[in-house]
Amino acid sequence: MKPLKNRKWSVLSSEYLLQEGEWCTVRRDKVQMPNGVIIPRWYVFEFPTWANILATTKDGKILLISQYRHGLGETHYELCAGLIDPTDASPMEGAKRELEEETGYGGGRWSLYMTLSANPSNHNNLNYTFLAEGVEPITERHPEESEDIDVHLFTKDEVREILSEGGIIQAMHAAPLWRYIAENKE
Amino acid sequence: MKPLKNRKWSVLSSEYLLQEGEWCTVRRDKVQMPNGVIIPRWYVFEFPTWANILATTKDGKILLISQYRHGLGETHYELCAGLIDPTDASPMEGAKRELEEETGYGGGRWSLYMTLSANPSNHNNLNYTFLAEGVEPITERHPEESEDIDVHLFTKDEVREILSEGGIIQAMHAAPLWRYIAENKE
Repeated sequence: MKPLKNRKWSVLSSEYLLQEGEWCTVRRDKVQMPNGVIIPRWYVFEFPTWANILATTKDGKILLISQYRHGLGETHYELCAGLIDPTDASPMEGAKRELEEETGYGGGRWSLYMTLSANPSNHNNLNYTFLAEGVEPITERHPEESEDIDVHLFTKDEVREILSEGGIIQAMHAAPLWRYIAENKE
Repeated sequence: MKPLKNRKWSVLSSEYLLQEGEWCTVRRDKVQMPNGVIIPRWYVFEFPTWANILATTKDGKILLISQYRHGLGETHYELCAGLIDPTDASPMEGAKRELEEETGYGGGRWSLYMTLSANPSNHNNLNYTFLAEGVEPITERHPEESEDIDVHLFTKDEVREILSEGGIIQAMHAAPLWRYIAENKE
């Protein structure tokens, strides 16, 4: 892959419009492009690092969850996901904690599968997808009070059908799942 | 695909924290879950409909762009993308306009390929990916002043390599490209 030029913008001034914690920190920058054009208002939403988990069981099932999502007002299939806490030793350890909390599954072989952004235009953070192969139920689920989550196990063909029918609309989850389908075709 | 229950939250109160136009409208809702739990602050970022285009040329190349993205401060490969204007007759017409403005390409056979959300937890809008097969250069590029865009043509194998090496981190672009790879393997 040919490396790309990074024609960075200069920040002329910057102010926080909202600082309401990890789900709502909004910054407004006045920026200048290398070609001299000044953009008076560019909005950046600051978030901590996020992670999600493409978890497969020993018998080859893929673990999905479903939960109501208030931004859109709809419920779809998703990967187990969450934000990395400052107390997590690493993004991978945070992802292991999330998987256990939300689904009760753990163990298996873990590796970093993809690094994505919800939208690099206005998000300052990254989302890591971990591939967790061979997970198994290891504990009771203990989701947060605000998490009303159903856990599902599907075969790879069922996940492909769900993806094709638009059952997974969260882009940070659809991307690693389609990659998994592309890389694991018989 | 089995339909999912949609356990909608009730909105107890709602207020706009920021109304700075199409790139920064922030709402804070106080909500109640069906299980009775009250969440005092849930943040929703309101945006218009977005669209991007997975465009292929008559000789099978895939059209990518690259541009600096200030939220993350980095430059990666992307699909041509933009927001749908109120004056666009439809999302597809808006996407055709965006492709022509940013790349000078047009024509071809257009179809809706995927419907995604950057994050349904806190975004109220959808992103449509259109597949545009057999596009060709039809006009001069006329990007907006704030758009400093390079246009690239790659083979499917080259795009797969770029994806595998992490060259496309925008999730709403990586998802349809990985789907295209999965569905168009020799």
